[in-house]
Amino acid sequence: MEPEEEGEKETLLLLETNIDDMNPEIYSYVFEKFLEEGARDVYLTPIMMKKNRPGTKLSVLADKTLEENMKKMIFLETSTLGIRITEIHREALTREFVKRETPFGMITFKEGYYQGTRVTFTPEYEDCRRVAKEQGLSLRRVYEVLSKID
Amino acid sequence: MEPEEEGEKETLLLLETNIDDMNPEIYSYVFEKFLEEGARDVYLTPIMMKKNRPGTKLSVLADKTLEENMKKMIFLETSTLGIRITEIHREALTREFVKRETPFGMITFKEGYYQGTRVTFTPEYEDCRRVAKEQGLSLRRVYEVLSKID
Amino acid sequence: MEPEEEGEKETLLLLETNIDDMNPEIYSYVFEKFLEEGARDVYLTPIMMKKNRPGTKLSVLADKTLEENMKKMIFLETSTLGIRITEIHREALTREFVKRETPFGMITFKEGYYQGTRVTFTPEYEDCRRVAKEQGLSLRRVYEVLSKID
Amino acid sequence: MEPEEEGEKETLLLLETNIDDMNPEIYSYVFEKFLEEGARDVYLTPIMMKKNRPGTKLSVLADKTLEENMKKMIFLETSTLGIRITEIHREALTREFVKRETPFGMITFKEGYYQGTRVTFTPEYEDCRRVAKEQGLSLRRVYEVLSKID
Amino acid sequence: MEPEEEGEKETLLLLETNIDDMNPEIYSYVFEKFLEEGARDVYLTPIMMKKNRPGTKLSVLADKTLEENMKKMIFLETSTLGIRITEIHREALTREFVKRETPFGMITFKEGYYQGTRVTFTPEYEDCRRVAKEQGLSLRRVYEVLSKID
Amino acid sequence: MEPEEEGEKETLLLLETNIDDMNPEIYSYVFEKFLEEGARDVYLTPIMMKKNRPGTKLSVLADKTLEENMKKMIFLETSTLGIRITEIHREALTREFVKRETPFGMITFKEGYYQGTRVTFTPEYEDCRRVAKEQGLSLRRVYEVLSKID
Repeated sequence: MEPEEEGEKETLLLLETNIDDMNPEIYSYVFEKFLEEGARDVYLTPIMMKKNRPGTKLSVLADKTLEENMKKMIFLETSTLGIRITEIHREALTREFVKRETPFGMITFKEGYYQGTRVTFTPEYEDCRRVAKEQGLSLRRVYEVLSKID
Repeated sequence: MEPEEEGEKETLLLLETNIDDMNPEIYSYVFEKFLEEGARDVYLTPIMMKKNRPGTKLSVLADKTLEENMKKMIFLETSTLGIRITEIHREALTREFVKRETPFGMITFKEGYYQGTRVTFTPEYEDCRRVAKEQGLSLRRVYEVLSKID
Repeated sequence: MEPEEEGEKETLLLLETNIDDMNPEIYSYVFEKFLEEGARDVYLTPIMMKKNRPGTKLSVLADKTLEENMKKMIFLETSTLGIRITEIHREALTREFVKRETPFGMITFKEGYYQGTRVTFTPEYEDCRRVAKEQGLSLRRVYEVLSKID
Repeated sequence: MEPEEEGEKETLLLLETNIDDMNPEIYSYVFEKFLEEGARDVYLTPIMMKKNRPGTKLSVLADKTLEENMKKMIFLETSTLGIRITEIHREALTREFVKRETPFGMITFKEGYYQGTRVTFTPEYEDCRRVAKEQGLSLRRVYEVLSKID
Repeated sequence: MEPEEEGEKETLLLLETNIDDMNPEIYSYVFEKFLEEGARDVYLTPIMMKKNRPGTKLSVLADKTLEENMKKMIFLETSTLGIRITEIHREALTREFVKRETPFGMITFKEGYYQGTRVTFTPEYEDCRRVAKEQGLSLRRVYEVLSKID
Repeated sequence: MEPEEEGEKETLLLLETNIDDMNPEIYSYVFEKFLEEGARDVYLTPIMMKKNRPGTKLSVLADKTLEENMKKMIFLETSTLGIRITEIHREALTREFVKRETPFGMITFKEGYYQGTRVTFTPEYEDCRRVAKEQGLSLRRVYEVLSKID
């Protein structure tokens, strides 16, 4: 399959909320559940809030069609009282997954194209992790060997 | 009082500035003063700036009617040279404050309703702090006892 | 089983290293592997290093008997050139795992005793997560219900 | 009063614990209570723990005579299961508090001496804060004016 | 030269991307190169991503005319797969650079004016650094002496 | 030159101080000056201090013979009132610098040996940076090409 010449452009929603009164164990589940439900990305930023409280900013990036579901999950799964919502313009490399024969067998690589030129080429983490465990190698060594592959 | 069925939707301003040349003692006062003057929220994020400087991003969330006052305070109280301003759409749970009889006497709880269903119910921090001090209990124990109240 | 009256006192090793030249995907694997190999705790701290590099301090807490294995893993799995090692005195609550009948069936709770008095009593995360998934509840709601159990 | 020629040298305890399952509102109270009970310093570091949990490392610096009280407070006021304790050698500037007549009236300054030479000279935060409020000046302006005082 | 009465208002682009698979040495170069190419500001925020990965959010603030160049540099210099772009309204103090005779010779100061009143007045870092090195003073002492200048 | 079979073991000092009242521009100079004066490493950790102040923990790792000089520099160059000093046991890979012919000409690589086996092999940042600038390549591309070299 030919990668497209042009990168993807799309409009997404960034939903953010500052949390300073929730058991942090719950973030474990938030990562898992929100990604399962289709969030494009979920990340946390350590912040400092009033009254000397260490807070966490939860950021969820999602398609606009998922707005209601994402808001509902944030309201039900976290202790937040309010969500800030902004529209974000996003531009992405054109991506392609390819397989390559390597000293560890077939491995999937992710390629990223910028205006038709490949600018990223990286083996999939899960494949590398599996090889490291099966072959008793360090994960770093696996990446090192795979960096010789084009 | 009946909680409203629909959560609040409003448009707020997020004013942000990166600061890398100010005595951090001043943030103490910034939290206090900005909240007194009506800011909805004030928070700090540790960032890393050019020339190996640890910086602080100051974020102030405020009603649009307070825009001029908030900008003035940021320019006068901090060492910033520029403020970034974005409009933020915010959706909040419908909130209600209720009192409950508890083993520690009357305590105020904050309820949050999502589409008519109560999804958060938390005792007020200042009440809990007062009880902990008066009764010589740990604050954690006070929260634990109050978690049994509905 | 009776909890012991006295908390545990022990001497552990804290192994730390600052890393500023490693693909962060590898930390995923480091958490998993080091805990499997017996580390008591693994955690990361964001730091700021020379040349404007965002670094990560890796901290591994382990029994002294595991010193050689832990050092070897740090040298092989990460890009570090040097490890800082300090002896740490650690005191812990006496812990006990107990089961309780709850509205969600049998759930394991972890109790912590300080000088014979129970000071912590918390449901196990993995049990709560399972209940949330099986019953379609928010994890926060599961914790809320279980906070009524003694 | 003459400042002593030599700075203070002393041995203190650093008590640390990683917390990933506590309502962050409680840290507010921890700062207040621990300092009241004689801790020399209390500070928090954002860390990243296993299972994708944002944690907080609580650090308490205290005299060795307060060891039992500090450990008890950490076990009762926080959700920790274990505390790491290390002896720390600390060297401090010789400090002296002096008063100066300023455009804002009498203000207290803290002086720090290194081997007999004054190396720090800073107005007390609480005095500056009071002046700012009374005179309707920015706190930054108050510090600016006081920086002209010797 | 007279400072303008009104501060500058302009619309800039904020380009952001979360990075969790790049050698952090590369950020050194990113700061240097992006500022050379005209970015107004470049800063990094430590974040926590899925799979227990410590990530870094790269933020680049730039004029709209530089949009294509900045996107190209982010795609080529970093391992990102996607960039989030938002328009930012920015208001800045009117700035002026002035020279003053000081105990260290001529030094450049940056003044910031808010509605015609000078609210910031700070010596340039590079001048102070040069003086500290040439005269064998601490940089802090240099700033202290220069704080007496108006 | 043969790498030594055994890694280096040494005892160093870790000097740390929490700073919450200093202009962050000064850290730029602290990195530069302390490394020039022989510190092994200098790094900063964002922390949260009492009174809602964002602080910075400065950490300096140095040979014991430099203790007095390092303490003096911390007292003179920063606003600290006290320094915490701990002895640290450090173990390092045996390192060797080697040159290799590459598509970009001769490049220096740093090798790290663990018990006689090479476990790290990385091109020097400054060489890579020079190549990127001279050849108009992205730094990431330079690292990618050099990862094929053994």
